Amino acid sequence: MAYLNDNYLKLQAGYLFPEIARRVREFCEANPNAAARLIRCGIGDVTEPLPPAIIAAMHQAVDELSVRETFRGYGHEQGLESLREKIAQQDYRDRGSDVAADEVFISDGSKPDCGFILDILGHQNRIAITDPVYPVYVDTNVMAGHTGQAGEAGRYEGITYLPCGPANGFVPEPPPEPVDIVYLCFPNNPTGGVASRAQLTRWVEYAREHNAIILFDAAYEAYITDPEIPHSIFEMPGARECAIEFRSFSKNGGFTGVRCGFTVMPKSLQASTADGRKLSLHPLWHRRWSTKANGVSYPVQRGAEAIYSADGRKQVRTLIDHYMGNSRILREAATRAGLPVYGGVNAPYIWVQTLPGLTSWQMFDRMLQDLNVVITPGSGFGSCGEGFFRISAFNSRENAEEVGRRLQTLA
Amino acid sequence: MAYLNDNYLKLQAGYLFPEIARRVREFCEANPNAAARLIRCGIGDVTEPLPPAIIAAMHQAVDELSVRETFRGYGHEQGLESLREKIAQQDYRDRGSDVAADEVFISDGSKPDCGFILDILGHQNRIAITDPVYPVYVDTNVMAGHTGQAGEAGRYEGITYLPCGPANGFVPEPPPEPVDIVYLCFPNNPTGGVASRAQLTRWVEYAREHNAIILFDAAYEAYITDPEIPHSIFEMPGARECAIEFRSFSKNGGFTGVRCGFTVMPKSLQASTADGRKLSLHPLWHRRWSTKANGVSYPVQRGAEAIYSADGRKQVRTLIDHYMGNSRILREAATRAGLPVYGGVNAPYIWVQTLPGLTSWQMFDRMLQDLNVVITPGSGFGSCGEGFFRISAFNSRENAEEVGRRLQTLA
Repeated sequence: MAYLNDNYLKLQAGYLFPEIARRVREFCEANPNAAARLIRCGIGDVTEPLPPAIIAAMHQAVDELSVRETFRGYGHEQGLESLREKIAQQDYRDRGSDVAADEVFISDGSKPDCGFILDILGHQNRIAITDPVYPVYVDTNVMAGHTGQAGEAGRYEGITYLPCGPANGFVPEPPPEPVDIVYLCFPNNPTGGVASRAQLTRWVEYAREHNAIILFDAAYEAYITDPEIPHSIFEMPGARECAIEFRSFSKNGGFTGVRCGFTVMPKSLQASTADGRKLSLHPLWHRRWSTKANGVSYPVQRGAEAIYSADGRKQVRTLIDHYMGNSRILREAATRAGLPVYGGVNAPYIWVQTLPGLTSWQMFDRMLQDLNVVITPGSGFGSCGEGFFRISAFNSRENAEEVGRRLQTLA
Repeated sequence: MAYLNDNYLKLQAGYLFPEIARRVREFCEANPNAAARLIRCGIGDVTEPLPPAIIAAMHQAVDELSVRETFRGYGHEQGLESLREKIAQQDYRDRGSDVAADEVFISDGSKPDCGFILDILGHQNRIAITDPVYPVYVDTNVMAGHTGQAGEAGRYEGITYLPCGPANGFVPEPPPEPVDIVYLCFPNNPTGGVASRAQLTRWVEYAREHNAIILFDAAYEAYITDPEIPHSIFEMPGARECAIEFRSFSKNGGFTGVRCGFTVMPKSLQASTADGRKLSLHPLWHRRWSTKANGVSYPVQRGAEAIYSADGRKQVRTLIDHYMGNSRILREAATRAGLPVYGGVNAPYIWVQTLPGLTSWQMFDRMLQDLNVVITPGSGFGSCGEGFFRISAFNSRENAEEVGRRLQTLA
């Protein structure tokens, strides 16, 4: 008798974005005229083409595969040496963080990595997750059996939720009780909030005191405009002993369809065996990749490497400036429309309070029906997201400006 | 206190291929003259360039990403519709197997899929694995905590091993005791053996009788030359109720560095909850992909799709004929050298008995030192591989012929 993994049955029915897609589809079928002017600011997917430096590098890599002399088969499961070295140098050492090339593991995105990391961690760990939050952190823990059933507000037994809202500036303080694994994401998806050096330092101190591990998702670091805001958890002293960082090329290089990201696993990070010995996690993570993967597609890795060239850096900067221009337009427009607005300064997401009396999903329906604009309801990211909605700045300038105009008609 | 996954500590120290690489490196450093004439027939990695149809499709897809009008971001987590449909039609329905497009899940290779499949299965399952075997099946079960410690012969407590050797033609019969999950790989890596329709039918009957699931790895199906040998487990009646199939573009299209494969998960396949309800596995697998992945790189999927075009099919056929030409040369040469030879007829691997009195690793050293040829020691694939070695046919014709000549000097 073959058994299935019962933990999957605890998952809440719909993943957020399929439910949005369903409502949009039904609306468009019923209202073809409105459908024609629909603007999507829901899912955080890039819209602008890949920069020329990346395109050229990918073409060249494909050509290499077309002749015997330069053809390449299996690569290192952990990634191209040259790409790992560029990341360690430019993303870390150039900013004063001590990261070696063999601590960088190339993957096909930070979403998979956020799930895979649980492979090497024990089932005994007490997990803390911010609320609202990117749903993947919660769902992968449910699948791994680290939770009980979901309660009424959609919260799972066994997870320590860390509420984030206007009162704490969307950055939680470490909890009074000890936890073992903490997910932090800054700049934050969905709130657009950022954590200061002092706030992240308190988290590092907490983690070191409790022998906890911070899983730091820095997928949006390229959108930081304030020079005082840290780009990496490893800018905090002591983080190499208590943190793992996830990064993505999705939102800087526009790789949502090309797929590449990486994890930094410091060799100095240790965790405990069941019988209390402390061992380094790096060899476990290395073994995971050797056994369960064959490395990321060669042309994709070459494309990612081009992001670190002089031309690539300049072109990626232009892309980010474009999206952050949208962000400013949307933030100012929502403010003018009288809505309380957060985020959008160091992140491509604007986090907006709903109109008085409306839930997140009611606001979603209102925006869809009255403005023909698709947003993401805040409650989809957790119970503390109720009463908010997220506007994504990933769009053309023209669309951002049009959404800005339509927001003025909300009242 | 953060805990690690103790099960990783049960894994045997070296993955096979790193150990081979170490011995070859040391030999080459000590013997620079011999190093210059070294020929590698160890790891099963393709050597010939990608076919032109695939190259053209990948270039075109990269170009699509360079302009706003055709740019694509996130795709379906489960894969491009058009690719899934072509696979279902050409690989299955055209051969009489009933497989729908939404039962095909595109991945970055069958190695990852063989590990990922355990995500949706319960920890209670009793696992059966052939011996010798591709090490990934065993190691991913060790990591998931499905075994005890390794014993002296490297076998793990808690796994039912199914011995394969000349006596059973390298195809095991179902065991007398009931097991829940069975890994089968035909054409086999490493033995090159194939299973007949009658043999696979007995396995399907066994699985249905015991409500077991067959995990069928068909990564080498393109190398089947005998028209009587099934290409897919789904050619057996009833397999849709008891089997999952893994396939790869690595060895037909030459995608070892490009990375693409797929899993077929029939909607009619059920497994049991802990409390004995039978549920379909398809929604769990679908959910796993939605939550833990963002789909395979767009240009890679377009490259895979080109394999199914008229030109692509012809060009892939030429590639396979090339490798199978090598296979014949190597098989005949080893036979002429007086060695008992298996496989190599419907698979790109030749499985050869060692010289009398030599272990697999002793034979490895002898081949390296006397012939300057790298092979894979059979014992690296399991204790029943002792006394054998694997020669890979993935090479240039020139190298295959030269290895054939050198084999004659073995005596």
